[in-house]
Amino acid sequence: MADNCIFCKIARGEIPATIVYQDERVVAFRDINPGAPVHILIIPREHIASAAEIDASNAALVGYLLQIAAQIAKQENLVDSGYRVVTNIGADAGQSVPHMHFHVLGGRQMAWPPG
Amino acid sequence: MADNCIFCKIARGEIPATIVYQDERVVAFRDINPGAPVHILIIPREHIASAAEIDASNAALVGYLLQIAAQIAKQENLVDSGYRVVTNIGADAGQSVPHMHFHVLGGRQMAWPPG
Repeated sequence: MADNCIFCKIARGEIPATIVYQDERVVAFRDINPGAPVHILIIPREHIASAAEIDASNAALVGYLLQIAAQIAKQENLVDSGYRVVTNIGADAGQSVPHMHFHVLGGRQMAWPPG
Repeated sequence: MADNCIFCKIARGEIPATIVYQDERVVAFRDINPGAPVHILIIPREHIASAAEIDASNAALVGYLLQIAAQIAKQENLVDSGYRVVTNIGADAGQSVPHMHFHVLGGRQMAWPPG
């Protein structure tokens, strides 16, 4: 855990968020600046700075996080219409919080390229 | 494997692609219609229709695929500048090939929202 990380604080319940799913490994909550009608962030409770840090030590956790993303998409009725999953790493991608998070966006037609 | 799937054919070497990494589980190759200066697709050799199909049976494979995405980003010198990882599911996201693939895009500033 990182003391001053906003997403660690959300995971600890110290900052409010509209949580749609949580368990002992991951937390999912609605983005406060949604980029689509459905826009959910999924984070590991463990503080991992970004997806550039994925290695053999945490790959299973990341796989689980993506499994939960698929489960949440079903909950949100996005599977038939479709949805996009995105993670940003560093400045060129506009990563805003240095705690790995996967965006799930759906409920509208998404354009290409993705930003 | 799916006989008529273009990405299964790339994985089997039946269709040419500019492969940047491969092993027994995943194959990575350059997108033929790049949306950024660096644009690589990473696929599992196993035919999984989309990230909506991720469950406990294949989550470890997906985690490994994301681990390889991080490794490829290092190879491509994207880590310091940043990059975006995207997967599309279904029509609203514009999924063009029904074999799960993760896009790695970098080498330019990416906009938000992601498409």
